[in-house]
Amino acid sequence: MSEYRFYYPLEIRYGDIDAQRHVNNARYFTFMEQARVRYFEHLGLWDGRDFDDVGIILLEASCTFKAPIQYGQQVRLGARVVRLGNKSIEMEYRFEEQTSGSILAEGRAILVSYDYHRNRSRRIPDAWREAISEFEGLG
Amino acid sequence: MSEYRFYYPLEIRYGDIDAQRHVNNARYFTFMEQARVRYFEHLGLWDGRDFDDVGIILLEASCTFKAPIQYGQQVRLGARVVRLGNKSIEMEYRFEEQTSGSILAEGRAILVSYDYHRNRSRRIPDAWREAISEFEGLG
Amino acid sequence: MSEYRFYYPLEIRYGDIDAQRHVNNARYFTFMEQARVRYFEHLGLWDGRDFDDVGIILLEASCTFKAPIQYGQQVRLGARVVRLGNKSIEMEYRFEEQTSGSILAEGRAILVSYDYHRNRSRRIPDAWREAISEFEGLG
Amino acid sequence: MSEYRFYYPLEIRYGDIDAQRHVNNARYFTFMEQARVRYFEHLGLWDGRDFDDVGIILLEASCTFKAPIQYGQQVRLGARVVRLGNKSIEMEYRFEEQTSGSILAEGRAILVSYDYHRNRSRRIPDAWREAISEFEGLG
Repeated sequence: MSEYRFYYPLEIRYGDIDAQRHVNNARYFTFMEQARVRYFEHLGLWDGRDFDDVGIILLEASCTFKAPIQYGQQVRLGARVVRLGNKSIEMEYRFEEQTSGSILAEGRAILVSYDYHRNRSRRIPDAWREAISEFEGLG
Repeated sequence: MSEYRFYYPLEIRYGDIDAQRHVNNARYFTFMEQARVRYFEHLGLWDGRDFDDVGIILLEASCTFKAPIQYGQQVRLGARVVRLGNKSIEMEYRFEEQTSGSILAEGRAILVSYDYHRNRSRRIPDAWREAISEFEGLG
Repeated sequence: MSEYRFYYPLEIRYGDIDAQRHVNNARYFTFMEQARVRYFEHLGLWDGRDFDDVGIILLEASCTFKAPIQYGQQVRLGARVVRLGNKSIEMEYRFEEQTSGSILAEGRAILVSYDYHRNRSRRIPDAWREAISEFEGLG
Repeated sequence: MSEYRFYYPLEIRYGDIDAQRHVNNARYFTFMEQARVRYFEHLGLWDGRDFDDVGIILLEASCTFKAPIQYGQQVRLGARVVRLGNKSIEMEYRFEEQTSGSILAEGRAILVSYDYHRNRSRRIPDAWREAISEFEGLG
């Protein structure tokens, strides 16, 4: 399955460009973070207001850079959940040039369901599991 | 004259929020930079490609913060040129909440016309002077 | 009086450099923020732990850029309080090249004493007024 | 072999802290980038001046986050090259708390030897291969 049901259109700022004159590598992780936040907002799992209700913490993040991203390029970032564990959520990301569809970068993250009020991990809440499974068509 | 003819809709990222849980002060300058870049792109004075052709360097920047900007708030940033000197360009910025129109912050910048190929300031090119004057209804 | 009693040695990261290949303008405000935080830590007015105890909010910030800062340059940033109002604290900043002492940029900020627990401004606490006045030799 | 011969002491800025009140995930990649740059400067392979002489481009980056990093924590970041391919350089990173030595995060990157003047990858120059092999005690 290579489809993404959620895309986030990147806004590349001049300030995202580094001395090599393409998007800085750390910004890809900022973009994936933003796609992640928007994904959970889109599914109604975070309201964008209370940061203690964010509900996830990052365990792993990675990115493979295939082609530099330039200022002015039209890029969309796909985000999807590919696996739900007991406590963990595995996501994939794909940076695509809007017009050609060519893949500029691919990423992956493992999140852990987290209660920021109690500062500890927790089982994925049923509401999260159901909303994500339904959206992604997961088993 | 309190009108802005150019507005740039802010995309506030989770990563723009700091430990006080509102938009970090330095990001206002990133946003004003981005509005500035877009303004000159909009007027056809920069093509978004060659950073040695940017044509301006920053001499002064300031911001007055009136109300914190939250994640999820809909904000647009007005940018305008209010004065053209021999070498200098004076700009003003206004952060407005989209719905209420309330002013969240106001900024100001003085730019100097700059030749990055020769690393020195220069008179404002006629094409710049004309395009800006026409757009803003100056002089 | 042109002396600074507090200096913060800048660490310029590759990631602070922008497409023009000098330190990005918004980073000067990040540096001034960091000097400010360190200044209040140095005076024992913030312990670096609880962000609800930060005690100040930014009202105005400005910077005049005199010479670009390059990666690898040794720069120190002076910070000082020049005036204490009823609720407001006025600070000045000076970016100096370590070896030559030449001034690369100068900044200014107006802070307001703020209670993040109650989300409102307040009179400057006596402990702050005394510590700052004594350190700076004010009043 | 679990030793690092090169450590870079992190300076954590207030501006590196996000709304969850610990160091933002993308900043780990900024820190690894900075350790990488310093590593190559330390080995005399980059002089910190000409960004077209940087000599490497990033192909992959990853990080595993073991414990949040707080503002004020004393952290050092180990960086090492663990393998030299024909064109590729594999690096590992370790974020360690200075006092306890506990591991806060671990990272990995694959770099490709790159000629920014010609915009293409290249074999690792002999000078690089020798300097790195000697420093790391590789093969």
